[in-house]
Amino acid sequence: MKKETSAPTMKDVAREAGVALGTVSKVVNGLPVGDSYKIRVEDAIQKLNYQVNSYAQGLKASKTYTVAVLIPNTTEPFFAALAYHINIVLMKQKYRMLLCCTDSDSALEQEYVTMAQQNKVDGIIGLTYNPNLVIEENTPFVAIDRSMGTGIPCVASDNFAGGQLAAEKLADFGCKNVAFLRVGSSLSNEPNKRKAGFENGCLSRGLHYEMKIIDDSEPYEEFETFLEEHMHGGKLSFDGIFCVTDRLAFSVIRTLQCLHQRVPEDVQVIGYDGIRHFGNMDYMCSTIVQPLPEMAEMCVELLLRENMKAKPPLICLPVTYAYGGTTSEGTDMAKEL
Amino acid sequence: MKKETSAPTMKDVAREAGVALGTVSKVVNGLPVGDSYKIRVEDAIQKLNYQVNSYAQGLKASKTYTVAVLIPNTTEPFFAALAYHINIVLMKQKYRMLLCCTDSDSALEQEYVTMAQQNKVDGIIGLTYNPNLVIEENTPFVAIDRSMGTGIPCVASDNFAGGQLAAEKLADFGCKNVAFLRVGSSLSNEPNKRKAGFENGCLSRGLHYEMKIIDDSEPYEEFETFLEEHMHGGKLSFDGIFCVTDRLAFSVIRTLQCLHQRVPEDVQVIGYDGIRHFGNMDYMCSTIVQPLPEMAEMCVELLLRENMKAKPPLICLPVTYAYGGTTSEGTDMAKEL
Repeated sequence: MKKETSAPTMKDVAREAGVALGTVSKVVNGLPVGDSYKIRVEDAIQKLNYQVNSYAQGLKASKTYTVAVLIPNTTEPFFAALAYHINIVLMKQKYRMLLCCTDSDSALEQEYVTMAQQNKVDGIIGLTYNPNLVIEENTPFVAIDRSMGTGIPCVASDNFAGGQLAAEKLADFGCKNVAFLRVGSSLSNEPNKRKAGFENGCLSRGLHYEMKIIDDSEPYEEFETFLEEHMHGGKLSFDGIFCVTDRLAFSVIRTLQCLHQRVPEDVQVIGYDGIRHFGNMDYMCSTIVQPLPEMAEMCVELLLRENMKAKPPLICLPVTYAYGGTTSEGTDMAKEL
Repeated sequence: MKKETSAPTMKDVAREAGVALGTVSKVVNGLPVGDSYKIRVEDAIQKLNYQVNSYAQGLKASKTYTVAVLIPNTTEPFFAALAYHINIVLMKQKYRMLLCCTDSDSALEQEYVTMAQQNKVDGIIGLTYNPNLVIEENTPFVAIDRSMGTGIPCVASDNFAGGQLAAEKLADFGCKNVAFLRVGSSLSNEPNKRKAGFENGCLSRGLHYEMKIIDDSEPYEEFETFLEEHMHGGKLSFDGIFCVTDRLAFSVIRTLQCLHQRVPEDVQVIGYDGIRHFGNMDYMCSTIVQPLPEMAEMCVELLLRENMKAKPPLICLPVTYAYGGTTSEGTDMAKEL
């Protein structure tokens, strides 16, 4: 089925409805007009199957109903889930998502920021560790996990509380001597607070702890060496390990298998993020779950809410603990708490 | 740092370059002008830091430099990787990706098709199992995995060859009696050819085989029942299983563990897709790998290539086998072949 006639214009709608062109324009752009006019215009739009030209609309209203989302990639499950939830929230509000997998390319990221400054997108939700990114004050930008400057809100899970919760859970499950393993950016960022939260939890529960911290440029093998150094007579001196991400926990669990340490019988492991096998199956490991639907909702709300006098600089949303087979709670508790 | 002056216009560029407004317009829209004019305009654009207004450009050239990508979600690793690779290819060509996670919502999918028909996006790359989606002939649409109609190319991995390869590998690794497990859409689609390819491979290699096929609406438990029915004296009668996806293989491997069957010692398992742990770590299982970078490249090429007299209706791209720990080839072969 192919339409042979040319698409109807706003003028056609005005003629059909018997109103002025300006009235049609107001209805299309959501500006107030009398109810009876509104109904006539809407009827004419429906009858003619008139489609708003979004470019012309973009020029007029300076609204694109498009939000750019910057993430490093979608291959990492955490970023993929983040993009998915942001997309759902945007679609509910009739917004479209321009997704840019930046692979941490700073020129690309800067390009999207420029687009937002030029109103080519209505705003940006971005997770970036680019230290050189320049975002002018009042650019419509909401950051995830890392503060990007004055006037730009940052949304994150409550990383401090998450670290603390991990320590408390390990203590609850009978651990006495635990380790914290971290790999991450040396730039100031929210996930770095997992460390302080964990230390705090260990101190308040009298848990002895050691830390091994490396940065992005160093290999995971550093952790293997660290664990090997803590093997004595075939036994690891730690009975619990908190890993800064589920990805790291996954690697560490393999290293523990190579060292003939049983998880969770000999050593319990808790990760962070809440990654599930194939996206929606069971958790990869026992973990601190980031509240992705709520984080997505908050990012969109902060970005699109107009007339907000002061945008909050940092919003930390509550985390939960979930069992994923690598901790030793009773089997009757073997579910999300 | 905030700019206080208003953004330069095309007129400012014309004045700066000492050329007519039309000349600037030609350069901006990539139309031919004399080299010396082109250089003067480009210099002026750079000097004034003139930014093209993409809405105005969209109206004029009917080009948006935006491609919509429709996938069910990004939480499923295969879809996430597909979106990632398409994004990379689009960005290389200076295109932006409007990503729509449809969750198979047919109204949403239809909306994006309408956008493409109205030139609000330059085209669509879509993976959809929506039987009601109406795509008019010559809509700029490239389909993945399922033919959407006349004039719309479909890009897929070579599913038939992949099924055949799985059978050949199981035969090579010593299997005698194998099973094929499939869950999927009952709509005609490319992945369904994995079955015929597998059967063909089994026949040509003299492998005895059985099949268990369910559709999307049935529970995975059907496979558990099927496998239990093939247990005799604590031993499974199959020594090899080909699962239609890595996701299914992952579930089946767990079922086999519950049945006290060792993988790969007692039964070897091959999946399909090439999913890796956390997106870029090792394979989830031994698997037939879909060539995602090549598929993404082909989708974009077919969508954006103009002046193509006849678009090919179906393009099947070659697959490879990768070892992922669930087959029994010698350890010296324990890598991608």
